Amino acid sequence: MAQPRCRSVLITGCSRGIGLGLVRGLAAASPSPDLVFATCRYPEKAQELQQLSKQYSNIKLLQLDVVCENSIKKVVKEVEEIVGDKGLNCLINNAGINVLASLEEVTAETMLTIYETNTVAQLMVTKAFLPLLRKAAQLGTGMGCHRAAIINMSSLAASMQLVQANEMFLKVYPYRIAKTALNMITRCLAADLKSDGILCISLHPGWLQTDMGGNMAPMQVQEAIPGILSVLDRLGEKENGSFLDWQGETLPW
Amino acid sequence: MAQPRCRSVLITGCSRGIGLGLVRGLAAASPSPDLVFATCRYPEKAQELQQLSKQYSNIKLLQLDVVCENSIKKVVKEVEEIVGDKGLNCLINNAGINVLASLEEVTAETMLTIYETNTVAQLMVTKAFLPLLRKAAQLGTGMGCHRAAIINMSSLAASMQLVQANEMFLKVYPYRIAKTALNMITRCLAADLKSDGILCISLHPGWLQTDMGGNMAPMQVQEAIPGILSVLDRLGEKENGSFLDWQGETLPW
Repeated sequence: MAQPRCRSVLITGCSRGIGLGLVRGLAAASPSPDLVFATCRYPEKAQELQQLSKQYSNIKLLQLDVVCENSIKKVVKEVEEIVGDKGLNCLINNAGINVLASLEEVTAETMLTIYETNTVAQLMVTKAFLPLLRKAAQLGTGMGCHRAAIINMSSLAASMQLVQANEMFLKVYPYRIAKTALNMITRCLAADLKSDGILCISLHPGWLQTDMGGNMAPMQVQEAIPGILSVLDRLGEKENGSFLDWQGETLPW
Repeated sequence: MAQPRCRSVLITGCSRGIGLGLVRGLAAASPSPDLVFATCRYPEKAQELQQLSKQYSNIKLLQLDVVCENSIKKVVKEVEEIVGDKGLNCLINNAGINVLASLEEVTAETMLTIYETNTVAQLMVTKAFLPLLRKAAQLGTGMGCHRAAIINMSSLAASMQLVQANEMFLKVYPYRIAKTALNMITRCLAADLKSDGILCISLHPGWLQTDMGGNMAPMQVQEAIPGILSVLDRLGEKENGSFLDWQGETLPW
């Protein structure tokens, strides 16, 4: 019997970087999900994403500003109209921002802004999609992206255990602190939603050459995407609530 | 030779609960610090604290609202005028708030408010006191509260490793997520300030019968205080960047 398939995926922050790479990778995958909801703040400016969505009929390009309650409500409704009773299999909370801020530079304002976008928004988007994730979960068995899963894009910089070994990350206080908090959201959701059959993990996608990752990053987005998609494909109950990197290795909290 | 002594301590959130208990415990300790700066938002309403400060001459009662930049600046200046070139040995970031909010109940607003008070404020208060902590650090050797230390009041509920075992805590999403983020601040500060000789830890004070802890808590504040003070007394380089409970046991991130 064939492995059950992930039929629908929604990704936030798809105009560039890892989000765009994930959309491209999923659309071109074999088998590919029936529906890849690619969301971003300004679809009209996202030219590469627009081109992709013309190339692949399973890509649905939707507007979503993850820190705007009304925008979240609107997109949930749009997705619901398309997926109907099948619900949504996989939500990838990828949207995020960064600022350079060392201990000397960090302000209350940057701490709050980065937390709002990188942590609070992921929780609010997840809450809004819970009814659709639960619908999908009711139709499946086991755990994984074929049934219902929440993937929170985290970062190696969020590992508390590894802080001493990564002093270079000390220049991004607000970001890494917010991503650590996001890891806790992953843990809480994994515990809370287990009985619904919804899996939740944190994923470190690798340090990649993106607008956020910068030029010093050792990898291109396209090098990491196959690894990430393979990790997502293999997720099961054992991985629920874990912190994995793009090669599937477990990272310490 | 006698163990070097912690001469000055500043505690936030001292009007009640653990903060008040710490002030009482420190003031009555033998030896007692020369200066116990007991800060709270509304000193005029903090009757027990006022009584204590009349009883013990080493208690200095000062106004501090940890989410107000001007209030922080003012209190740093007041402390500086008292401690002079000796600086401040120990900062205890104790002030915090909680709301009951499960996954269904949690809102973006409560997430941000709790983060501001329980996480961002600790970082901003610490930043403001860094010059005084560095002054004290320059006069001492080794690491610990006798020289310069930052104690972040955390919570067992913030342990990511232990989430599965503590499902009752799932009713405090904003609090536990903010405290996890505070633990990351501890890790970053410990790495960043090590070369200055300033130690930083996260401390779980025990689940205590306070306004925040509620009636179901298994311990009174006064039962935990001797343990906490003994832990603070024994802190050294080995504990820098760690997450300890009130009995000195290491908690997993």
